[in-house]
Amino acid sequence: MSDASALPPLTRIEALDTPLVAVDLARVERNIAALQAYCDAHALDNRPHIKTHKLPFIAHLQLRAGARGLTVQTLGEAEVMVASGVRDLLLTYDLVGETKAQRLARLALLADVRVAIDNELALDTVGRAAALSGRRIGVLVEFESGKRRQGVLTPEAARDLALRVQEHPLLDPLGLMTYPSSAEVVAFVARARALFEEAGLPLHVVSAGGTPGMWRAHELTGVTEYRAGTSVYHDRKSLEDGSGTLDDVALHVHVTVVSSPDADRVVIDAGSKVLTSDLLPAGREAGYGLVLEYPEAVVRELSEEHGVLDLRACRARPSLGERLRIVPNHVCPVSNLVDEVALHEGGTLLAMLPVVARGKR
Amino acid sequence: MSDASALPPLTRIEALDTPLVAVDLARVERNIAALQAYCDAHALDNRPHIKTHKLPFIAHLQLRAGARGLTVQTLGEAEVMVASGVRDLLLTYDLVGETKAQRLARLALLADVRVAIDNELALDTVGRAAALSGRRIGVLVEFESGKRRQGVLTPEAARDLALRVQEHPLLDPLGLMTYPSSAEVVAFVARARALFEEAGLPLHVVSAGGTPGMWRAHELTGVTEYRAGTSVYHDRKSLEDGSGTLDDVALHVHVTVVSSPDADRVVIDAGSKVLTSDLLPAGREAGYGLVLEYPEAVVRELSEEHGVLDLRACRARPSLGERLRIVPNHVCPVSNLVDEVALHEGGTLLAMLPVVARGKR
Repeated sequence: MSDASALPPLTRIEALDTPLVAVDLARVERNIAALQAYCDAHALDNRPHIKTHKLPFIAHLQLRAGARGLTVQTLGEAEVMVASGVRDLLLTYDLVGETKAQRLARLALLADVRVAIDNELALDTVGRAAALSGRRIGVLVEFESGKRRQGVLTPEAARDLALRVQEHPLLDPLGLMTYPSSAEVVAFVARARALFEEAGLPLHVVSAGGTPGMWRAHELTGVTEYRAGTSVYHDRKSLEDGSGTLDDVALHVHVTVVSSPDADRVVIDAGSKVLTSDLLPAGREAGYGLVLEYPEAVVRELSEEHGVLDLRACRARPSLGERLRIVPNHVCPVSNLVDEVALHEGGTLLAMLPVVARGKR
Repeated sequence: MSDASALPPLTRIEALDTPLVAVDLARVERNIAALQAYCDAHALDNRPHIKTHKLPFIAHLQLRAGARGLTVQTLGEAEVMVASGVRDLLLTYDLVGETKAQRLARLALLADVRVAIDNELALDTVGRAAALSGRRIGVLVEFESGKRRQGVLTPEAARDLALRVQEHPLLDPLGLMTYPSSAEVVAFVARARALFEEAGLPLHVVSAGGTPGMWRAHELTGVTEYRAGTSVYHDRKSLEDGSGTLDDVALHVHVTVVSSPDADRVVIDAGSKVLTSDLLPAGREAGYGLVLEYPEAVVRELSEEHGVLDLRACRARPSLGERLRIVPNHVCPVSNLVDEVALHEGGTLLAMLPVVARGKR
C-alpha cells in the first residue's frame, strides 16, 4: 500500500511561473465526451484531430472515449502518435517525395494509416510507401468545399483520381475527404456517389471536419466521419462561432502584468511566442485573445514576449504583478509553441505534459 | 592525420526534406561583420539581440567579431547563452516574481548580467536576485520612445527610478534603454542627462536598438550602445524598410509545392507553423513572405501546414513537386518555431544546428 502522506504536497498551478499554458483535465474530458456522444447519436465515426493538443495523453483519452481513430496533419505527428501506441490514423495532407514515402512506409508497418490526396504526385508517394512496406494503404480523395486551399474541384476529378488509386495493387480507394464542412459538401458527395457507383468504385468513407459547425455535421447527408480538433480545448474562435462556451474552454494562458506605463494600458509577459499572431476573421472581435478577468481589455498588440492590453474600455484595471488568464484566439498554434503544458484539475497540478508532437513535421 | 576521403560525401540542402529552414553561413558572417564595422566606425557598443537566431553558434560568431556582449529577451534565453559560454548579457525585459529572482541570481553567479526595468516591482526582482547571489547587478531604466509598449514616459520618471536603483546596496544604475530608436530618443536622453547629472546619477549607458534604422543609429546623439537582432538574418521587413537587401537575407524557408488545384493557385507545405502569421505593417506588401523564384506570387493564406500561393500576377507558375525558397516577413518567430536549422555554405550542409534557445521563456 502506498502512503499518500509521504507524497509532497500538491502544487497549485497559480504557484507556477508565467507565461504558463494550463490545461483543465475535467473540461477536456467533458469536451471529448460531448463530441463522442454527438457522433454516436448520429452514427458518425469520430476521428479527432490531434493537431490541437499534440499530446499522447489526450489522444488516448479520445480513443478510450470511443473515437474510431485519430487524424494527424504531418508525418511527424503520426510518428509521435504511433510511438505512443495509437494504431489507426488518417493523415489529411498531400505527401510528396521519396523521404516522405519512406517515413509513411515505416508507419504502415506499425499502424493502419490512411492518407488523403488531391493529386497524382501525392498518390505516387502513397503508392511508393505501400510498395516499400508491402502493406495496403487506404486513400481518400480530398475535394474542395469552400476553403480554396487543397482538394479536387469536381466530382468527376475525384472519380478520376480514385480510379488511379484503384489501379495500384496495394492502395485501397476508400472514399472522400474535405475541409471545411460547408453546405457545398452535400451536393458534391451526392454527385460523386453516383459517379463512383457508375465506375464501380467504393465510397465507404466521406470524412468532413472542423470545430465550427461541428454540432450540425449530421445535416451533411452522405458524411460518414467527422474530424474535429479545436473542440477538445475550444478557444476564442469557438466562442465567436458558437461551437463552445466560456465554460468549455479548457486551455488558458496564465500571464503576469509586468509593466504599467500609463492609465490606458498594461503589459503582460506573453506575446506572439505564446499567443501567436492569429487574429479572428475580419469583422469579428479585435485583439489577440480574451482576458478572463478583464473581458473589456483588448490585447491590442503583441511583440514576441510582450502583450499590450488596451484598458480604455475597462472599468477596473489590473495591477502591476497581477496574474491573469487569457483565452487565445486560435488554440492549435499555441500548443505548437510550448514545450510543455500544465495539466490540472481545479487548479491542482497533475502533470507537466511534454507537448511531444510540437513542431513535428 | 585525418583521412578526408573516409568522410561521407557532403549533403546538399536541396536533398533535405521540406519544410526546411536553411541558414547561409557566409551571409550571416557578412551581416555580422557589417554591423560590427558600423558600430566600430561610430564608437557604438554593439550588443546584438540573440532572439533572432537563438543559436549559441551564431552568438559566439557575434562575440568573436567584436560585440561588447549580447542581448536576450527572456531568462530562458539567458540561461541557454550562459550555458554555452556567453558571459556578458543584457536582459531587456521586466522580470517579476520570486522564481525569476532566483533564476536571475543563478545567472549573476556565472555571468555579467544587466537588466532593464521600467517599474519598482521589476526593480524589486533584480534587487532580490542581487541579494540572493551576493553579486552586483547593473540596471538600465527603460523609457518610452514611440513603441507604446513598455518604458517610463518622462525623463523625470527615469531619474526617480534610477534613484531607487541606487538605494539598493548591490544594484548599479548604469543608464537608460529603449526600443525602438526614434527621433524622440535624442530629446529624451538630453533632458535625462541633465536630470541625472543634477541628481548625481551615472549615465554610462544609453542602449537603443532595432534593425530598422540601424544604419542611422549614429545620428541618435547620446546613444552609446546598439542592439540589433534581425540584421543577422534579415527578412522581408528588412527589404521593405531598407535595412537589408535580398543578397543579405541569410535565412530561407525551403518548401515544396504539394497541390495545384487550379490555374490561380498552388499550395506549399509551409504554413503558420513555419512562416508565422506575422504580416508586414499595414499598407506595405501583402502576404506571408516573398517567394524567391516567383516574386509576383502572393502567399495569400496560411493554415498551420499549408500556404496558398496566389499566382494571378505571375507570368510563370510553379509545378507540382517544385521546390521553392521563401523569405519570411519576420524572421525571429520563425527561429522560434523550428527545432533545428540547416546551416550551409553555398548550399552544402555544414550542420543541423539545434535551436537551443527556442521556446525558452
